[in-house]
Amino acid sequence: MNTTTSFFSPVQSQIHQVEHLMRSQAENQHPDLQAALDHLLASGGKRIRPTLTLLVGRMLGGEEPRLITLAAAIELLHTATLVHDDLIDGSLLRRGIPTINSQWSPGATVLTGDFMFARAAKLASDTNSIPVMSLFSKTLAIIVNGEITQLFSTHCKIDREEYSRRIYAKTASLFEASACCAALISTDDKELIEEISLYGRDIGMAFQIVDDVFDFTADQTVLGKPVGSDLRQGLVTLPAISYIEQNPEDADARELGCGNNFLGNDKVNRLVEKIRFSSAIEQSLLEADRYVDSALKRLQKMPAGPARDNLTELTRYITQRNV
Amino acid sequence: MNTTTSFFSPVQSQIHQVEHLMRSQAENQHPDLQAALDHLLASGGKRIRPTLTLLVGRMLGGEEPRLITLAAAIELLHTATLVHDDLIDGSLLRRGIPTINSQWSPGATVLTGDFMFARAAKLASDTNSIPVMSLFSKTLAIIVNGEITQLFSTHCKIDREEYSRRIYAKTASLFEASACCAALISTDDKELIEEISLYGRDIGMAFQIVDDVFDFTADQTVLGKPVGSDLRQGLVTLPAISYIEQNPEDADARELGCGNNFLGNDKVNRLVEKIRFSSAIEQSLLEADRYVDSALKRLQKMPAGPARDNLTELTRYITQRNV
Repeated sequence: MNTTTSFFSPVQSQIHQVEHLMRSQAENQHPDLQAALDHLLASGGKRIRPTLTLLVGRMLGGEEPRLITLAAAIELLHTATLVHDDLIDGSLLRRGIPTINSQWSPGATVLTGDFMFARAAKLASDTNSIPVMSLFSKTLAIIVNGEITQLFSTHCKIDREEYSRRIYAKTASLFEASACCAALISTDDKELIEEISLYGRDIGMAFQIVDDVFDFTADQTVLGKPVGSDLRQGLVTLPAISYIEQNPEDADARELGCGNNFLGNDKVNRLVEKIRFSSAIEQSLLEADRYVDSALKRLQKMPAGPARDNLTELTRYITQRNV
Repeated sequence: MNTTTSFFSPVQSQIHQVEHLMRSQAENQHPDLQAALDHLLASGGKRIRPTLTLLVGRMLGGEEPRLITLAAAIELLHTATLVHDDLIDGSLLRRGIPTINSQWSPGATVLTGDFMFARAAKLASDTNSIPVMSLFSKTLAIIVNGEITQLFSTHCKIDREEYSRRIYAKTASLFEASACCAALISTDDKELIEEISLYGRDIGMAFQIVDDVFDFTADQTVLGKPVGSDLRQGLVTLPAISYIEQNPEDADARELGCGNNFLGNDKVNRLVEKIRFSSAIEQSLLEADRYVDSALKRLQKMPAGPARDNLTELTRYITQRNV
């Protein structure tokens, strides 16, 4: 563990409790549900959302047991959306581990995701907070509506606004909820709640932009999928948008957004390489930095202390992390 | 409308409000979501669950706006589970109307169901009751766990207990929640809440048994599917269980439950006809009557008045209805 990830340490034992609570959600249920949950939890992930929830709650003086319950609800909701996502995309691996849909029938995969939604909602209700429940279910609706919009979009849009809306729905909305729900059960101060929600949104936006950059720049073996796989699937992310803005005359790029979701293999390979080595990468990371700067400013309005310091590290980590 | 369904009249205007509230859940979302919701609501259904919620709430002095919100949450949850069920079963029609999965891709169908789960949870949280939220999410977990158990069961079980567990998970748990949640937001009397929950469970059990009988006895054109379709799909329901108990020597029936989910066409046709004209039908309906009798006794402990009278009619209707 290096200094940029040292913010994980102070909440490590709570994260273990979060994972234990998530795993216990399939107790006394069909054994295959327990197997699915164990499998999904074993595949890991950085647990950045529960870490965010725990640190925000700690900073604002929340009760630890409720924060742990909330963090488990958030991470289980996140995991459930991934189960359905992987089914819909036909993904066979996630973080190098076989997906549920690669091993089970579509029906069993749908129901596993549904079960996890149900248990996530139960955990959210265990926080005993109506505003948490309300935001929790609203956030799920935002995420799903975003996916439906993407699924039904008939052509690639080369549009920053549309991109922002998309990554808000996909990623930033749940970061926002992770921070906001933690605040809701920790303080009555409306200004603090509002500010920390926007903080969560900011780092969520930065997180997704960095992910979208990695899709172009990271090593294929580390990514576990081909470089530029978003573009190959017809998904135009910020590096591509930025490249097209700077190279309006590029013939390959001009074919995007003309009702033509899928360029041929040669064209897409060429375009991915051009974007990868263009200033669009740096431009995109600068955009992520702007979100991080905004987030850091919001943090300054929060109560000072070790938890705020940890959140400052977490915020910087968003753009400094590797894949 | 005949006398046996006159209990629908007193809540008809509230049911319209419930439907309006359900339909409004897709406002400002992707237009195809609105289309899906309109389509699902147009296909109708008897709205027996929201009627139950509204009448129980009225009997126990609940506030009408909260009851309408709750009833919409319950019916939307029910509709969402049907969307995923039809996808998993590959059903092309429900109540004579094309299913979502018959018109859309599996991915879009999964997400439509997910969106409806999210909005149902939001409506449940709008009732401002933690116990309602908690029971709501628990009930979804019970329904989904029941479906997974059925999906993973490797052979037909000829077992009344297993059948009872199955129809509780599939149907009675949501009837129980419809009644219990209405009570939770209407009264603090724990005994009344407990008793009306069991009432809901009783009529839910009776409702599903009668449905399972219809699968053998109703006209194919009215059912919208072949007579005996449960058995054809390897699902052993009460009429089949009862027939096998009474005819242990029947060669076709003996083949069920031997790890052999699907009898050949000839055998299953013969068996369906034998069950259809056997006393197993009457025996099954007597079992449903026993649940209705138990439900009516529980109703007697409730506050007297027009709402209780309506619930008495609703209870009798469960076994007297046509398909």
